[in-house]
Amino acid sequence: MPFRIKIPRSTIERLPLYYRCLNLIEEHGIEEISSQVLGVRVGVDPSVIRKDLAWFGELGKRGVGYNVTYLKEAIARILGLDREWPFILVGAGKLGMALAEHNRKYGRHFHLVGVFDRDPAKIGLEVGGMQIRPMEDMPLLIKEKDVKIAMVAVPAEEAQKVAHELVKNGIKGILSYAPITLSVPPDVLVYNADYNLDLQRLAYYISNEGEQTWGE
Amino acid sequence: MPFRIKIPRSTIERLPLYYRCLNLIEEHGIEEISSQVLGVRVGVDPSVIRKDLAWFGELGKRGVGYNVTYLKEAIARILGLDREWPFILVGAGKLGMALAEHNRKYGRHFHLVGVFDRDPAKIGLEVGGMQIRPMEDMPLLIKEKDVKIAMVAVPAEEAQKVAHELVKNGIKGILSYAPITLSVPPDVLVYNADYNLDLQRLAYYISNEGEQTWGE
Repeated sequence: MPFRIKIPRSTIERLPLYYRCLNLIEEHGIEEISSQVLGVRVGVDPSVIRKDLAWFGELGKRGVGYNVTYLKEAIARILGLDREWPFILVGAGKLGMALAEHNRKYGRHFHLVGVFDRDPAKIGLEVGGMQIRPMEDMPLLIKEKDVKIAMVAVPAEEAQKVAHELVKNGIKGILSYAPITLSVPPDVLVYNADYNLDLQRLAYYISNEGEQTWGE
Repeated sequence: MPFRIKIPRSTIERLPLYYRCLNLIEEHGIEEISSQVLGVRVGVDPSVIRKDLAWFGELGKRGVGYNVTYLKEAIARILGLDREWPFILVGAGKLGMALAEHNRKYGRHFHLVGVFDRDPAKIGLEVGGMQIRPMEDMPLLIKEKDVKIAMVAVPAEEAQKVAHELVKNGIKGILSYAPITLSVPPDVLVYNADYNLDLQRLAYYISNEGEQTWGE
């Protein structure tokens, strides 16, 4: 159910942090949590947390806090985690293979349903519990499994071509490890997982000490 | 040189995208760029780009645009990329090894200077052009090379202990691939590279179509 109002991107960026933390807190049997305690756990100012959550209605009680399970489930619904998200991986180099295995250990709502590579020598090799398939198989799999998300771990010079193929076949969200900015239509979202971006952000905050609190 | 004013975090998040794009544009021999064209290339609204850059003084000319090399170098200085940043990696599992090799291909301002693992069977193996070393060697290397940044690619249950050791030895920025929120002192910044967070953000935008523009 789409929201009619525009939620700030920074709020959406933080929701997964809250969600991850609430899962852990729930596993520890804690039932209620204040924005103060949640703030310490996720490293976000409590006033920012309250503002973030206020976008989605009354999720807590003033002066009491939030019910952990209720809040966790509310955030899950907001994020679209009340359904399963199959995704595919394009690029079975070292990084792609490692990412596929990593998901197998930690994936929950996101299930890798296909790994693709251009290199004929890689086709049929096993990674993340499945066989690497040729690029030609991609369109049919995307359609059959209603895949909307793709991870791209191909070299910079191939990434744009791969993105184009993904978009043409209906992919709406790309998590890209390629060190370039992909050009996609406005209805497709790309997240840059190229870690040089994060290293540069860390460099900024370390160079400018005292700037590193999560604000808005 | 620390800035006296507090730059919005969302601005800092976007600077590396501009920087990466300007590098590419410069390689193509383009000398001037407007915020409109840069906006299309990085997928950010031109008015947001102008506001972001205005934090740092007059970087362009009204109605003319930005000089590519000048803007690129200005952003590099802002981000702290006018110096080299040695960093270390803790955790030489499949993901850690792949990340180390990846940096070797794409690293520029960030140089991997040490890879550490607890597992005695891994010590001495080569990855990313260097030998994996035992955790005990870490404090001395951090001191000798003046390392401020660490990448953490250890399992969830070990990550907090590793973070504690890193902080104790002077690390100020952590890029963590572990699927937990690390608890660190306020003068240490953690970036979460756990890709489940990004997958959840993508799920949100795909569930709520039309919400996916980079705004503020």
